Amino acid sequence: MEISEFTEVMLAAKEDAGLTFQDLAKKVGLSEVYVAALFYGQAKAAEDVAEKIASELGLDEDFQKFMVDFPDKGLGPVVPTDPLIYRFYEIMQVYGYPIKAIIHEKFGDGIMSAIDYTMDIEKVEDPKGDRVKVTMCGKFLPYKVW
Amino acid sequence: MEISEFTEVMLAAKEDAGLTFQDLAKKVGLSEVYVAALFYGQAKAAEDVAEKIASELGLDEDFQKFMVDFPDKGLGPVVPTDPLIYRFYEIMQVYGYPIKAIIHEKFGDGIMSAIDYTMDIEKVEDPKGDRVKVTMCGKFLPYKVW
Amino acid sequence: MEISEFTEVMLAAKEDAGLTFQDLAKKVGLSEVYVAALFYGQAKAAEDVAEKIASELGLDEDFQKFMVDFPDKGLGPVVPTDPLIYRFYEIMQVYGYPIKAIIHEKFGDGIMSAIDYTMDIEKVEDPKGDRVKVTMCGKFLPYKVW
Amino acid sequence: MEISEFTEVMLAAKEDAGLTFQDLAKKVGLSEVYVAALFYGQAKAAEDVAEKIASELGLDEDFQKFMVDFPDKGLGPVVPTDPLIYRFYEIMQVYGYPIKAIIHEKFGDGIMSAIDYTMDIEKVEDPKGDRVKVTMCGKFLPYKVW
Amino acid sequence: MEISEFTEVMLAAKEDAGLTFQDLAKKVGLSEVYVAALFYGQAKAAEDVAEKIASELGLDEDFQKFMVDFPDKGLGPVVPTDPLIYRFYEIMQVYGYPIKAIIHEKFGDGIMSAIDYTMDIEKVEDPKGDRVKVTMCGKFLPYKVW
Amino acid sequence: MEISEFTEVMLAAKEDAGLTFQDLAKKVGLSEVYVAALFYGQAKAAEDVAEKIASELGLDEDFQKFMVDFPDKGLGPVVPTDPLIYRFYEIMQVYGYPIKAIIHEKFGDGIMSAIDYTMDIEKVEDPKGDRVKVTMCGKFLPYKVW
Amino acid sequence: MEISEFTEVMLAAKEDAGLTFQDLAKKVGLSEVYVAALFYGQAKAAEDVAEKIASELGLDEDFQKFMVDFPDKGLGPVVPTDPLIYRFYEIMQVYGYPIKAIIHEKFGDGIMSAIDYTMDIEKVEDPKGDRVKVTMCGKFLPYKVW
Amino acid sequence: MEISEFTEVMLAAKEDAGLTFQDLAKKVGLSEVYVAALFYGQAKAAEDVAEKIASELGLDEDFQKFMVDFPDKGLGPVVPTDPLIYRFYEIMQVYGYPIKAIIHEKFGDGIMSAIDYTMDIEKVEDPKGDRVKVTMCGKFLPYKVW
Amino acid sequence: MEISEFTEVMLAAKEDAGLTFQDLAKKVGLSEVYVAALFYGQAKAAEDVAEKIASELGLDEDFQKFMVDFPDKGLGPVVPTDPLIYRFYEIMQVYGYPIKAIIHEKFGDGIMSAIDYTMDIEKVEDPKGDRVKVTMCGKFLPYKVW
Amino acid sequence: MEISEFTEVMLAAKEDAGLTFQDLAKKVGLSEVYVAALFYGQAKAAEDVAEKIASELGLDEDFQKFMVDFPDKGLGPVVPTDPLIYRFYEIMQVYGYPIKAIIHEKFGDGIMSAIDYTMDIEKVEDPKGDRVKVTMCGKFLPYKVW
Repeated sequence: MEISEFTEVMLAAKEDAGLTFQDLAKKVGLSEVYVAALFYGQAKAAEDVAEKIASELGLDEDFQKFMVDFPDKGLGPVVPTDPLIYRFYEIMQVYGYPIKAIIHEKFGDGIMSAIDYTMDIEKVEDPKGDRVKVTMCGKFLPYKVW
Repeated sequence: MEISEFTEVMLAAKEDAGLTFQDLAKKVGLSEVYVAALFYGQAKAAEDVAEKIASELGLDEDFQKFMVDFPDKGLGPVVPTDPLIYRFYEIMQVYGYPIKAIIHEKFGDGIMSAIDYTMDIEKVEDPKGDRVKVTMCGKFLPYKVW
Repeated sequence: MEISEFTEVMLAAKEDAGLTFQDLAKKVGLSEVYVAALFYGQAKAAEDVAEKIASELGLDEDFQKFMVDFPDKGLGPVVPTDPLIYRFYEIMQVYGYPIKAIIHEKFGDGIMSAIDYTMDIEKVEDPKGDRVKVTMCGKFLPYKVW
Repeated sequence: MEISEFTEVMLAAKEDAGLTFQDLAKKVGLSEVYVAALFYGQAKAAEDVAEKIASELGLDEDFQKFMVDFPDKGLGPVVPTDPLIYRFYEIMQVYGYPIKAIIHEKFGDGIMSAIDYTMDIEKVEDPKGDRVKVTMCGKFLPYKVW
Repeated sequence: MEISEFTEVMLAAKEDAGLTFQDLAKKVGLSEVYVAALFYGQAKAAEDVAEKIASELGLDEDFQKFMVDFPDKGLGPVVPTDPLIYRFYEIMQVYGYPIKAIIHEKFGDGIMSAIDYTMDIEKVEDPKGDRVKVTMCGKFLPYKVW
Repeated sequence: MEISEFTEVMLAAKEDAGLTFQDLAKKVGLSEVYVAALFYGQAKAAEDVAEKIASELGLDEDFQKFMVDFPDKGLGPVVPTDPLIYRFYEIMQVYGYPIKAIIHEKFGDGIMSAIDYTMDIEKVEDPKGDRVKVTMCGKFLPYKVW
Repeated sequence: MEISEFTEVMLAAKEDAGLTFQDLAKKVGLSEVYVAALFYGQAKAAEDVAEKIASELGLDEDFQKFMVDFPDKGLGPVVPTDPLIYRFYEIMQVYGYPIKAIIHEKFGDGIMSAIDYTMDIEKVEDPKGDRVKVTMCGKFLPYKVW
Repeated sequence: MEISEFTEVMLAAKEDAGLTFQDLAKKVGLSEVYVAALFYGQAKAAEDVAEKIASELGLDEDFQKFMVDFPDKGLGPVVPTDPLIYRFYEIMQVYGYPIKAIIHEKFGDGIMSAIDYTMDIEKVEDPKGDRVKVTMCGKFLPYKVW
Repeated sequence: MEISEFTEVMLAAKEDAGLTFQDLAKKVGLSEVYVAALFYGQAKAAEDVAEKIASELGLDEDFQKFMVDFPDKGLGPVVPTDPLIYRFYEIMQVYGYPIKAIIHEKFGDGIMSAIDYTMDIEKVEDPKGDRVKVTMCGKFLPYKVW
Repeated sequence: MEISEFTEVMLAAKEDAGLTFQDLAKKVGLSEVYVAALFYGQAKAAEDVAEKIASELGLDEDFQKFMVDFPDKGLGPVVPTDPLIYRFYEIMQVYGYPIKAIIHEKFGDGIMSAIDYTMDIEKVEDPKGDRVKVTMCGKFLPYKVW
């Protein structure tokens, strides 16, 4: 099964079930971003999580198996064309070096892990227009000196 | 003056002055990420801010002028090679569609602005290894229907 | 359903129905560019709009659903090969920096939104050859200083 | 002389002279976008226009000559990284096919010329936030059938 | 129908009918290059031309319709790999600037239209080896000064 | 010496001398496109031709030598950004396969040489707008069967 | 029929028939590289050759026709990933300019034809390890001076 | 020193000395392709070879040292634009898979080494036009099975 | 059969059989990396090995044949997007030149073979977090001087 | 200072000092790969290490400072052209998925860190030809489930 087929069916099933990512996240005890990542074949579920999701969405074993597989990560073109996703690319291009300079100043030579990593997306209500708040939190990994 | 020359001199002057981005940020009443963005020619300073920074760093008028110019934004290769910056590219590639799905679910069809946007970088101490916390906060812009 | 399949069927149905984008736009109370964007899976319709269009074109629920989905935007190769579309790429390449300089002079550091955005395409009759007039109108978004 | 050197000096001279593109445009009887295009080496000036601009900005003959040269057009990377310019790329990617469909419907098989072409940028004041209005107007060129 | 399917069937039908592009061109009163462009979905036929070609080749209405559609132009990779087509890319790369210099000298700042354009391919017999003569003829379009 | 420096000086000298490519071509007994190719470092001159051109333009031996060198051919980006040169790229993309089909039909499997090749650019006066006529003439090279 | 399908069936049929390219080459009076090129849709067979090969391999008329078609040449990615094929790319990158310098010195300004061209692959036995000997032989084509 | 500077001086010195690659090759006991590779910084000379070449060409120690350095190999763009060099790219693209198939048939799974490798370029006189004969000879390296 | 189909079935069969790569490797007397390479169509099996694997996994002759075919090597995009695989790309980018400098210092001008090559992946238990140990061992191939 | 200038001077100084990377590594108590990475601006030295290296090589404070800077990592083109470095790219392309499959099987969903990472390069003497042994050892980082 191609990732895109998997995702299409999963999203349709979720819509039919009238569930949000938040709803599903609560049912399986995970965060909503992680659950969304499962829908796009970008994260791996434990057996029981996959089973619960498949059962909530009324999907057969193939889908359950797919979630347990270790995924081939990375989706979309080299430079994203979708405007929503592109903005994150733009942030990386415009603020990438400033971020690097600040992490270096605070932590030293190293990186923020994208593996030992969590992220959260919140809606911040604001009379001048609601805001999207994305919180990324990754372990600092210092370069090993050997 | 090339951006890279500007940055090199600015960073050296800051180091000689023994100032952190945080120090400079406080002196000019801006956030540290914004100040770092100024160092990389990715943001524009108001006249008085540019003057204050140039004077703190002992730099001449050319540098002050450069900060006031409206910058030509975007730095580095199409796919970043620096590991620290690459991790943000990877997050966009792995979590881009999940982020899109969640923003859509919470807000509808639109994007998080990268212009009406702030970001913050914190050190979260953790006995298992300190963590980098990056908070992005952009206005939600709904697609206009016309 | 792939976007290209969706578009092919939609365009054929529109031709069979003998309707222009202008006709459809009037029926649903939207602009013709927005309606054309719906045909290419680049914009999202409200439920009732999707229903009206599907019924006008005699298409089933799958098509109606597709229009209500939040679309994965961006079509075609990195550099467009179609001559009509390429001309807009060429305008961006030749006049991009001049446009940036003028917007900066008139507005300050910021961008024209492509989200809070409308566009209009008119035929201007001219004895020396008719002209295409494209009017783009987007909200100016000033860079937030934080 | 490289285009970038030319542009840098021209822009600095204009700033020193305290002139806007609009001011210069009036003095030489051209539109402001065309004048800005001259500053970026993307358009060609008539001898007298070049002379007038060079004299207004206090620049020597090399700069005057450069404006009269026929330019090597096209600036910046394949996909623009500057957010302001990128938005025009995004518009081309998201609305390219819809634009094509509408031009086709109104005019038949052909293109909007980017050569027999004018463009105008206006500030539209709006209590909800000022808007940028870009008007492109190019001759329709029908594909010759031979 | 994909362009490649369309082309494959059209070429096979033409071969079965024992017709050259020249034969077909005469029957429909067009040039042979234009007719070949129709076969590759790169040009648009008038209704009666499409009908005549479909009937000559014994093809059904789908094919006739396809020729009347406004085509999505541009075929093959960014840099062509086929040696015959590559030679035209090479000519553009090696002689592009010289051509530009000469057109400029003869006509001023502008371009040769690829839309108000005809082309012709002839066999020139030569005892030292026959030669291919390609004649391109496009309207000169001067850059509008506005 | 870089090609671009060479070209810049050559073009300036030609302008100062008030000579067209046609003038120079007559003086040295070559076609004007070939002479223009020499100016862009894309063709090689015989010793006496180089000497005559250098003397006509009042340039020293370095320039004479450069014309006699065997050049490193190919100029500009992979996809040309200059609108005049781009049109030839567009012709190759839109008409490449049709050209291939016709050459094949007239000659068999092979190519038009871009080496044993001449080209000519003429101005064709036309009341509806002058036309650029480009004639390419290359030896047909049949694929050797071995 | 896609080239890849054609190739897959042809290779399987050859294996079933227990024939080497050398065997087939002898049967049809061509070199083995040319025959292999036929298998990959990169060369064109005369009618009788195609017939003989199809009959040797027990394949039907579709395959015979495919060999007689004039092929769309060039296979694989821009930079080959297969290690065997990559080595030829590497040779071109490392030794390309040296080869150019030597051909120039021996022949003057021109190229080795890849059309009026033959190639041969031999196994040279060697106690220190057998060697692959590839002999390329193409007509020298001098640049025409016109 | 950049490779291009090194090459430019080396080639000029060789021309002034009136020596061919063949002449130099004989003097130092190497093949002419290897010597040409030294000129382009693509191969490494033994100390005595470098000394002899530098002395033959009247060049100082910097050049001698450069030849002894271990080079950073690979020159020119990803797809070569020079027509002579491009033909080798084309051969790799058109005949790459056929070559692979034949080497496989004769040798098994493995590659022709581009390291334990020699190459030779000869002029083959021919009344129908002289031919370039390039002989590549590399050790066959079978994939190790482990 | 596409490589991806082959791999999908092979992996599923292995999972159903409850076998690790290590188990299979022991059964056929090969290393586990080599066996994994077979699963991804990147290595070639001897007849008996292919037979044994197919029988262990309960797969038919098509799969057995596929393993015996000589593979078309190289998988995935030019820059890998999968984070695990990307880290090896990053190592090549960050440590490539240092590795080259050290190999050169220890061995002279040449390469580590990726053909006469073995690799091993081990789990090194560590209280601070287990480590992945990858051992690459390739024959040093000195550049032949000829 | 550009990285390439830094590297060129550092390597020349090391050669003049007659020191190997191994020698330097012992003097500063680091591994030789890490020291080589310092030479290419890919790693960061502690103050005392930088001082010791600068003093061993007789280099001034600028070089010492450069080593203490936090580096902008990643060198060379997207696909390396140097044959030695390319082989590591090839290993990643050919064995990337097999490596991923094995790491997954042994460790679960995660990656080998390229940050908490060491590497070692040894010469393994072998009568059939010495071998290069590269040992990579990185911490396994399991994907955090959140």
